[in-house]
Amino acid sequence: MRDVHALVTQWMHSAGMTVRVDAAGNLRGVYRSGRPTQARRLVIGSHLDTVPNAGAFDGILGVMLAVALVEQLEGRSYPYAIEAVGFSEEEGVRFNAPFIGSRAFIGSLDAALLDRRDANGESVRDAIRQYGLDVDHLDSATAAPESAGFLEFHIEQGPVLDSLNLPLAVVDAITGLTRCEVVFEGEANHAGTTPMAGRRDALAAAAEWIVQVERLARETPQLVATVGRVIAEPGASNVIPGRCRATLDLRHRDDTQRHESFKVLANLAHTIGMTRGVRVSIEPKLNQESMPMDASMTAGLTAAMEKCGYPVHRMASGAGHDAMIVASRMPVAMLFVRSPRGISHHPDETVRVDDVAAALRVGAAYLEAFANA
Amino acid sequence: MRDVHALVTQWMHSAGMTVRVDAAGNLRGVYRSGRPTQARRLVIGSHLDTVPNAGAFDGILGVMLAVALVEQLEGRSYPYAIEAVGFSEEEGVRFNAPFIGSRAFIGSLDAALLDRRDANGESVRDAIRQYGLDVDHLDSATAAPESAGFLEFHIEQGPVLDSLNLPLAVVDAITGLTRCEVVFEGEANHAGTTPMAGRRDALAAAAEWIVQVERLARETPQLVATVGRVIAEPGASNVIPGRCRATLDLRHRDDTQRHESFKVLANLAHTIGMTRGVRVSIEPKLNQESMPMDASMTAGLTAAMEKCGYPVHRMASGAGHDAMIVASRMPVAMLFVRSPRGISHHPDETVRVDDVAAALRVGAAYLEAFANA
Repeated sequence: MRDVHALVTQWMHSAGMTVRVDAAGNLRGVYRSGRPTQARRLVIGSHLDTVPNAGAFDGILGVMLAVALVEQLEGRSYPYAIEAVGFSEEEGVRFNAPFIGSRAFIGSLDAALLDRRDANGESVRDAIRQYGLDVDHLDSATAAPESAGFLEFHIEQGPVLDSLNLPLAVVDAITGLTRCEVVFEGEANHAGTTPMAGRRDALAAAAEWIVQVERLARETPQLVATVGRVIAEPGASNVIPGRCRATLDLRHRDDTQRHESFKVLANLAHTIGMTRGVRVSIEPKLNQESMPMDASMTAGLTAAMEKCGYPVHRMASGAGHDAMIVASRMPVAMLFVRSPRGISHHPDETVRVDDVAAALRVGAAYLEAFANA
Repeated sequence: MRDVHALVTQWMHSAGMTVRVDAAGNLRGVYRSGRPTQARRLVIGSHLDTVPNAGAFDGILGVMLAVALVEQLEGRSYPYAIEAVGFSEEEGVRFNAPFIGSRAFIGSLDAALLDRRDANGESVRDAIRQYGLDVDHLDSATAAPESAGFLEFHIEQGPVLDSLNLPLAVVDAITGLTRCEVVFEGEANHAGTTPMAGRRDALAAAAEWIVQVERLARETPQLVATVGRVIAEPGASNVIPGRCRATLDLRHRDDTQRHESFKVLANLAHTIGMTRGVRVSIEPKLNQESMPMDASMTAGLTAAMEKCGYPVHRMASGAGHDAMIVASRMPVAMLFVRSPRGISHHPDETVRVDDVAAALRVGAAYLEAFANA
């Protein structure tokens, strides 16, 4: 993290920015053109962290594009300041809690999150202190009051643009998300001595449900449903599983449709359980409503794409992003850059040079338009 | 183990037996009536070990019945010796290898098994030495040459006798067993950004297969099939599983039917994988043919049941038992005692007093008949 901060700080300096690391470990470079007063500020950026064994573009590309946009100005002046931000800890790897940097930026990094501990028992608070930052002055990490918008460039991390053969997309919403764990409780028994008829196999019940989860998602446009983790207990090859826990991750841009689909899947789990003598309980973990991007900024971004001659594709983001957090504090917009083969969080994650150039052109056109917005 | 040996040794002594612990930790009591030469020996017993958090009857009841049968003789003499044996390490808990005691009894406790290590890195060889036994003279643990048969009483550990409302069953075979692991390899991807159509979800493939495993077993008389362990990787709620390993435990008394069913299930896995772009590989773990009990001893046991007025039910054992191992050395027979509600390997494991009395009566009648066999 120190190396990344040192290197990006150099580049920000070269582009004419004033740079600091705020109390939450966000790297923040501010560019002010010569004008004496700038009533507004446009924040551009994304996160600098990523996951283990990841690629080189998730998050970081968005920070690089912010720096490059300022570099490109070559002294040109707009009636607003530009802040390039590299958020810390978006992925949530270390503390199993995402968006730590952007939460500080909007002033919602609370005591509970600061007290959260990593696998070694160190808290977020400890980590901030050990990095040499002043955790008691997190207010210095919040957005400047004159911030009038946040623009995030990010790789799509999915295959949609690649399959459409398009370089860019305007993100119009972050999809809503339901996360829960479904617990199937049957009866463990000997795999050899228990006839099929008398079984209350918790894993067989879960498997039947997982097949139905997939079927519903395939049949419902835009719905994605994933069972990512399943734990069968006791988990021995010669014991009928007595208990099985399965996670569900359910996303749809339309909250009503998502809630409806969740009900269907919950009912299916209960019905499957009833016919098998398996008790089913559902533990909610997360219910995050769909987050629309700012209409005016999104229209500006769309206009910039059209001006540059790129076909406009609008799409919802299936993943959460810093923009989703920042949206509670200021208008936000997002531009997706194609992910070849949809690969992300993997060393093969990449972008095309032409697509990045396209994003840069659209960004420059947007900066021009923002002067008059 | 020392306490069990001390206590059962007392009871064996009281019944008139000569007792020793052999080099493999089997407790062996021999009863010789007054006759000078006894050309034959009948071995009766089961195992003294059990699993953690178990009940009080699995294995141990078979040893107690052997001791009780000798006690009941009250000095009566037969033209053969009776050996009561309490085998060690039948369950395989510590070294993840079952039947250590009975393997020594038939002379097949080889170097590979002796070198096998427990979770703390101690070998079977170390454990035998630390118990104070001479691991270099395991030949002293083998069955006496004049051993003419092995009779094992054991709780059923399943619900069949309880559902038929019968106290006892003659076991005519131990069912054959196929054990394998099926590996599904798809592609891990982001649960939010990957549309359903492009997914290669290894867990969804495994779930579809698990449902088919259960369906086939339900449709095929006497077949039992169990997926007891499933591991989806990477195992995060927001990541489509890229890899999933599932165990299969498949049992049928008829080996041909079992092999046929295994082929069907293997083909199903491959077909499911092909339609999903998921690579399927099957790793065989165990192929154990069905083991018939000795026809003549089994007929003798059946006749004893009839003589005592108990309805004769013959069944295959779905679980493995020491008798299966001993069968390679001498004729074997088994009598099952009802397991109320089929519960075993659980503190609620129990037997009915009347059923144990019935087993004792049948055993006594068998001893009488064995004199003339």
